[in-house]
Amino acid sequence: MSRRVYLDNAATTPVRQEVLEAMLPFLTSNFGNPSSIHQEGRTTRAAIEGARKLVASLIGASTGEIFFTSGGTESNNMAIKCAVSDMGVKRIITSPAEHHCVKHSVEHLKSMDMVQVDMVKVDQYALPDFDHLEELLAASDTPTLVTIMHANNELGSMLDMHQLSALCKKYGAYLHSDTVQTVGHFPINVQQTPIDFMSGAAHKFYGPKGIGFIYINSRCHIHPFIDGGSQERNMRAGTENSSGIVGLAKAMQLAYAELEEDTAHISSLKEYMRQEILSLCPEAYINGHPENSLYTVLNVSFPPGPYADLMIMSLDIAGISVSGGSACSSGAESQSHVLNAIGHPTDRKAVRFSLSRNTTREDIDYAVEQLAGILSAGVHVLS
Amino acid sequence: MSRRVYLDNAATTPVRQEVLEAMLPFLTSNFGNPSSIHQEGRTTRAAIEGARKLVASLIGASTGEIFFTSGGTESNNMAIKCAVSDMGVKRIITSPAEHHCVKHSVEHLKSMDMVQVDMVKVDQYALPDFDHLEELLAASDTPTLVTIMHANNELGSMLDMHQLSALCKKYGAYLHSDTVQTVGHFPINVQQTPIDFMSGAAHKFYGPKGIGFIYINSRCHIHPFIDGGSQERNMRAGTENSSGIVGLAKAMQLAYAELEEDTAHISSLKEYMRQEILSLCPEAYINGHPENSLYTVLNVSFPPGPYADLMIMSLDIAGISVSGGSACSSGAESQSHVLNAIGHPTDRKAVRFSLSRNTTREDIDYAVEQLAGILSAGVHVLS
Repeated sequence: MSRRVYLDNAATTPVRQEVLEAMLPFLTSNFGNPSSIHQEGRTTRAAIEGARKLVASLIGASTGEIFFTSGGTESNNMAIKCAVSDMGVKRIITSPAEHHCVKHSVEHLKSMDMVQVDMVKVDQYALPDFDHLEELLAASDTPTLVTIMHANNELGSMLDMHQLSALCKKYGAYLHSDTVQTVGHFPINVQQTPIDFMSGAAHKFYGPKGIGFIYINSRCHIHPFIDGGSQERNMRAGTENSSGIVGLAKAMQLAYAELEEDTAHISSLKEYMRQEILSLCPEAYINGHPENSLYTVLNVSFPPGPYADLMIMSLDIAGISVSGGSACSSGAESQSHVLNAIGHPTDRKAVRFSLSRNTTREDIDYAVEQLAGILSAGVHVLS
Repeated sequence: MSRRVYLDNAATTPVRQEVLEAMLPFLTSNFGNPSSIHQEGRTTRAAIEGARKLVASLIGASTGEIFFTSGGTESNNMAIKCAVSDMGVKRIITSPAEHHCVKHSVEHLKSMDMVQVDMVKVDQYALPDFDHLEELLAASDTPTLVTIMHANNELGSMLDMHQLSALCKKYGAYLHSDTVQTVGHFPINVQQTPIDFMSGAAHKFYGPKGIGFIYINSRCHIHPFIDGGSQERNMRAGTENSSGIVGLAKAMQLAYAELEEDTAHISSLKEYMRQEILSLCPEAYINGHPENSLYTVLNVSFPPGPYADLMIMSLDIAGISVSGGSACSSGAESQSHVLNAIGHPTDRKAVRFSLSRNTTREDIDYAVEQLAGILSAGVHVLS
């Protein structure tokens, strides 16, 4: 098999071996339904409650504020839709650079005339303009939910959550943040930085797919988004994905235990890759904020050229897995809504390289080498 | 470790070894995000589309009518809530013996004044009175969704789906059926027996927890219940639970491949257990329909006695795992809504024994032996 270098870790990460090992008992011997009161059920119940306690402790939450869901998308749907249906929210302030699960949830509510929607301006990094946000917040007493993502999944740009939290508090607005790209990668503490709703997805931090959580501040009283049995303390019905929950907690524990060394390792590789690419192709530039950014994501804008259209595919053929933006829109022909929001020129090609704790310097060298071949071959073939 | 006999398979079944083996590659090397267009993504995508095709073929559906969800509860929420929000349904006809996920979804819509709800009468087995259903259907031209479960999860009683389907067709009503207890256990063919929505959950047929599917007849046009990316052909957003999807399809394939021998094996053990219990305790009787019933479920009504209150717990201590009804309500003190619906006397104790392909005659003998001890000890201790 030819060499492959996986640089699409913002789309999903491989499951860590330790995580798989923690999950396996719940796919074999510990198979009880956690709602059952017999021994098999209680064993699973105890593991789930242990996972909940662990996740809560890692973000400074109370155990009763963590609810497991099928992933970040469900968590974000739940926060936004239930805040509107159950908490009297009549206005949503959001940004044009949100993930589709936030964007489409908000649009859905708007299409049903359930909310007024105000868009906050974003800068060239897709970060919200806090002055404009304050204007919007000050302009109306309508009960408001602000939903703005912690870090942009395509560009990596990361906002100052303290500032966002303080602004929302000042004007009495509820705050939801899609934190899917930051949980497990940055310290988050809901005591120090109050927030009403945040979301996490295990597969972004070396856990399995199909499992996530939502943090709901205890001051927020909502009904379940998925109705049914009394699972998840009556907040999310359906037999719990026990192996997934245990895997999520294990992955999150490991991620925070090794945060410092992973951050240092990945950050230095990202900086190395940035330099190598800019030296290879001086007309390229980096999208996303130069300092306040995910250390995993390097979004590069390549100059117009004959190679541009097929760049992602050419890299794939050369063994390098990257994406053009969000995985959710990677099949799309046109430029993403995020690139449009920052006014990215449509004749340039944006490529998102996203690194992981498994990425090596040799991986970067190999990727840049293949990139060099594509950039030059494209020109040769068609010039 | 003392002997344990697990007789709560209607709550959940253990994962088959073959299923786990099919899942493992998607928890290790095949970790790509199925929405990614590179090789890792395409590998996962191909597996998911293969799973969809397989599931569709097993129930006579088109591939485009199967959507993977986080489980039966989400599927049932989606069918009911989206039929109301997107298909103009203004009336729901349902039964008082539905699973909580149907019951509470309907109640939620009613509380928001989005639908009128008519309850169909049920008989002493919790099966719907089809004459009454026809009266209700004939009484109004309001666009109607009928949601009645295929088999009752507590009692096992199973309705005639052909008859239900024909009635709904005659009056132009949409039909949703919670088929969570029957998928993988009975042949289901949506060509022969038209239905608009049905649901399945892998963990009821030896697959993993946290994964299910919804069948949506192609004539039904709904929006996603969970908004976001374009996953699941734009019908259910969120990164797919790839290992779960592959596991579900494998489990369902095996279940239907071995349906005949599993049915024969489990049916004969159920009949054996029924006879043994009735001979041990002649005052006991069986809840649920004597013929049209899940072959996995034996719900026994024990006469009043000092042992009754602690029966489930005493059986657990003796190594026998059973439940008092649905797993979702197994912690509840009071009698379930299903037992109330059939007028089950509150001074009697209903115990649900549910068998699996792994259950042996020795398991039944051991369980009945322990039961005998509890029935007599209870009397001795307190008489």
